[in-house]
Parts: sequence; structure tokens; C-alpha cells
Amino acid sequence: MNSKVYVGVDIGGMTVKLGIFEGEKILKQWAVPTRVKEQKIAADIAETIKDALKELEIPEENIQGIGIGVPGNARPDGFVYNASNIGWKDYDLGAEIKKDLNVPVAVGNDANLAALAEYWMGSGKAYKSFVLLTIGTGLGGGIINEGRIVNGMMGSGGEVGHMPVNPDETLVCGCGKCGCLEQYTTATAIMRMAREAIEEGKLSTAIESKTPTAKDVLDAAKAGDPLAEKVMDDFAKRMGQGMAIIASVMNPEAFLLGGGVSKAGDYLLDLIRPYYEKYLFKGCVGAEFKIAALENDAGIIGAAKLAMDSFPAGWDAVTE
Amino acid sequence: MNSKVYVGVDIGGMTVKLGIFEGEKILKQWAVPTRVKEQKIAADIAETIKDALKELEIPEENIQGIGIGVPGNARPDGFVYNASNIGWKDYDLGAEIKKDLNVPVAVGNDANLAALAEYWMGSGKAYKSFVLLTIGTGLGGGIINEGRIVNGMMGSGGEVGHMPVNPDETLVCGCGKCGCLEQYTTATAIMRMAREAIEEGKLSTAIESKTPTAKDVLDAAKAGDPLAEKVMDDFAKRMGQGMAIIASVMNPEAFLLGGGVSKAGDYLLDLIRPYYEKYLFKGCVGAEFKIAALENDAGIIGAAKLAMDSFPAGWDAVTE
Repeated sequence: MNSKVYVGVDIGGMTVKLGIFEGEKILKQWAVPTRVKEQKIAADIAETIKDALKELEIPEENIQGIGIGVPGNARPDGFVYNASNIGWKDYDLGAEIKKDLNVPVAVGNDANLAALAEYWMGSGKAYKSFVLLTIGTGLGGGIINEGRIVNGMMGSGGEVGHMPVNPDETLVCGCGKCGCLEQYTTATAIMRMAREAIEEGKLSTAIESKTPTAKDVLDAAKAGDPLAEKVMDDFAKRMGQGMAIIASVMNPEAFLLGGGVSKAGDYLLDLIRPYYEKYLFKGCVGAEFKIAALENDAGIIGAAKLAMDSFPAGWDAVTE
Repeated sequence: MNSKVYVGVDIGGMTVKLGIFEGEKILKQWAVPTRVKEQKIAADIAETIKDALKELEIPEENIQGIGIGVPGNARPDGFVYNASNIGWKDYDLGAEIKKDLNVPVAVGNDANLAALAEYWMGSGKAYKSFVLLTIGTGLGGGIINEGRIVNGMMGSGGEVGHMPVNPDETLVCGCGKCGCLEQYTTATAIMRMAREAIEEGKLSTAIESKTPTAKDVLDAAKAGDPLAEKVMDDFAKRMGQGMAIIASVMNPEAFLLGGGVSKAGDYLLDLIRPYYEKYLFKGCVGAEFKIAALENDAGIIGAAKLAMDSFPAGWDAVTE
């Protein structure tokens, strides 16, 4: 094959996902383990890409660029300031990759690249400016403004999970502060709030476990369970506050909700909307609420798009 | 004179400020009353610009473009969604100006244009991404991201004064909501909080008036007056929270503080900084704190820059 291709890489704590793209078409999609302890991540990425190209019979020089998403903050040129889950601090990922594979490398925050993916081929296609909120074990955020990622100074644009929405909170967040949005608006938070309510002896008609999952709580709330409804109301109140705050900063056209909790779909959007509207500045009305489309593939898709935007076709790669 | 010029216009509730610019040089700077009741604002602007050009002996066709800042939300093409202080709703300001003066018109929110002005020739020159907070009777905001204004969908980007920082507040903000940042972080708020403390019989060693001005309170706080210090501490706590929130959304390189209260300078920055750092997500550290440079001229300077960016020299004006 003589295709000009881009590679999208999404580095997670357990696996590195990869995809080889020819335009919007994914020629091959696979994953390898993230060897954090051995610190073989960059070398593994270069090697597995080489193997995949061989299999596809695409010469290495046909790679136009590699885009990589990291769970941390990074600069587009490949420098990672911090990705504590995988042990990187001030680490030049771009240079490490280039030791084994002489192609242009662009790097970004994984949540920001997920937003770029939604912009390119997901629920964000209709908008120029929107905010993706990924509600899973944590609350990730990525912001697209006029078609471009808001990276900020250190790649920490869109780190909305850690905005201080409650200065009176005494419970400590994973980040070390108190009162972060993420403490109320994740699967983890739903589980914690339900557990606390059960321990306090609050009434539940539908939850049997003493330690219900977020899905247990969501299902029970949908079924009208009072304990679960109260938990989801607390969740929705803070989510509405957080989204109204973001609206006053960015005035986006839309909010996209992704991640595991977003599978609750319209039920979730309908819970959040009244609080959002209560807290929203009237000059910032009009943003639409949507569920994100790309799920687990968002990482490699956004990473490939970052590479396409950074090293467009016809761009003459100047590599060392 | 045969200069190619731009006009910067800043529409306020009482006066319309204007400036004729040749590059960075202001050839003439003046003001006319804002005739809100008569709704003569657009016609007055066109007429006074014509008069000024005659006086400067510059032909009308030498105007490359007019930029206008409005106290409300607007689209760059000249359409004003809302500027309630001057009675505009869905008003095509650009088209109105062009009835009398056939030149390209660009319109923006006044606080956003003040930020653009700081970017061009003020305290924001050193940065690509920063946030200007104007602390006066209200809290205005303008955001520059990678050298461009964050307008958002309806020109309401940067409306940070109305972010809901306190869902438990019962006092109503001018916008009709409760718990906006602006309720704690303006000259108005400083006066209110001091008045309330005096009414509650709290101890003051330095404030004589029952209704002190913001400057009275600031001066008293600097002199160690306990009542004033407590008021400024409450102010600083919310300002720190608000700025940490903005940092988690935008990850800016700097915050610039402008407006009347910012005249307190380093004293103010030093009050805010500890709270900001307390609430700040560690991934977003590093933003500098500065006092804005341009004061009252920021409006016309930013408006002129908007026109320059919208209709660059050599741009061939297509007007109806």
C-alpha cells in the first residue's frame, strides 16, 4: 500500500491504544499494555507502530505524523510536563519516540483530544465552540473554541474537574484540595454519596448492596428510589453549577457529556438542566446538551486529528 | 493628510468615547454624550466621526474600518444581541452606522475589547493567553486565548462576574440570580459588606462614615482596621476562588486586574494570592498576577484593534 497515513495513540494507565488512519478511515486499530514500571512506553509505541506498518505493507516514510494523548498536561511539540499515573514529569515524549521512529510527533492531554475527536467526527461536528465533560471515575474536560483546543499555558486547559465550586468542603479530593467539582460529579462521587446515605440509615426501596455501583444508584433513581434520587439530585445540582460556571467563562454552543455515567442519556441531561438554568447567567443562554458519540475510540481519533492538524498533508516534515 | 486610519469607539451608558488611530498612534481622542433616550447613538457616532475627519483633513475613504465596544453581547459582524443599559436588543448596530458612513464596522463586548487592548499595548503584551478582570461597580471579564478574544456563541465569553460561586447565597445579584462572583468582588460589594458589618456593630478603628466608599475600606484595611481587613479578606477569598476556577478552565499565563479597585495595586494582589493558591489545581500553576495598564483608554484602543484585525490594511472593503 502506498497510503499516506497518520497514527493516533492514546496512552492510558493500563493499555496504550493505537490506530492507523488514512483520512477518516481507520486501517488498523489495536492496543498494547502500558509498561509503566519498566518505563518502556515510548519504545513500545515506536515498535508496535513499526510492526503494524509492516503488516499493512506501508513504508515508514508514509507516516505523515503521530499524535499522542497522555493522561496529564503536555505541550503540542511533545513535551510532557506531568503525567503522574505513568510516572512522567518534564519528559520529552516526542524526542523519545523519535529515537526509534523518525516522524513528526504532536502530543496533547487525553481529555482535550477526546474533545477534538468529537469535533471532527462525533457529537461536536455541528459546533465551533463546545465543552466535552467526561464523567467516569473522574471528571475530565476538553474545550474546543472556534475549532481549536483550548490548551492553555501548560496543556491544562479544560481541567474543569478541579474547579473549586465549594470553598466550605472539608473532604479532600484526589488532587489534595477540597471542594473540587469532581468530588460531586463522577461515578466515584455517586457511589460515595450513596454509601454515606446508606450508612446514615436513609431509606432505600431499591438498593440492596451496602456499597452500590453508580449504575445501581442510577437504576434505582430512575425507579423512584428516594435515597438514589437524592444522590442524583446532589450530583445534578453541582453539575449544573459547574456547567453554568463554564458557560459564563466560554459561552459555548454546546455541552457534550461522555464517560460511563453519560450512558444514562436523556435521564441525566434532564436532571442537570433545571439546575444549570437556575445558575446560568442570562447572557450565556442557548447552549445545547448532547451525549458524546465516540466513547472509547475518542482518544485515538482525537490524537490522529491532532497529528493531521499539526502536520497537514503536503507539509514537508523537517525531522532531526 | 492622506493617512489610512481606523476608528475605535467605546459606547458607555453616559458617554461615547472615540479615537482615530494611525497604527498605534492616536491622532485624535474625544467623547460625545450617549443619547440613549433619543436613540441617536449610531447617527451621533457617524456624524462625530465625519466631523473629526474633516478637522484632521482626512478623507472618509481613508477609514479602513471602525471598531465599536458595547456594554452587552454582540457579534463581530455588528449585530448586538443585548445591551440593556442603552436599550438595544437584537439591534444591527453595524447596519445603522453604515447608513451614514459607508465603511466596514466590527463590534465586540467592551470588556473583551479592553482585554484585546491590553494584549496589543498594555500589560498583556507579554502573553498569548490571559484573563483581564475589571473590578469596578461590577466585575467585567475579557479572555484572550492564543492571541484572540474568546467571544463564545453570543459574545458572552468572559462574563465571569456572573459565574455561580455560591449556590447557598440568598442575596439577589443585579442579574436576577443568587451567588454570582460579582456579589463579593466589586467596589459595590466592598461598600455593602462594610456597611453590613458596621450595622452589625463590628469594631472599626479607622472608618467614620456609616456608608464608606470602597477606597475608605481599602485605606482602612491597609492601616490595619479589623472591620475593613475582614471585608477585604472576604473579597479576596471569593476573588481567589473565582480566579482559580478560571485557571482550571483556561490555564492562562496571567491574570490582569483593572478597574477602580485595582488601583490598590500590589496590596490587592497580595491579598488575593494566598486564596488563589489554596483553591488552585496544581496542574494549572504558574499564572502571573499583574495590574492592567490602559485604564479608561482601553475601550477605544481595543475597539480600534478589533477593526485592524477584522479589516487589515490591504483588505479590500466590500461595502453595500
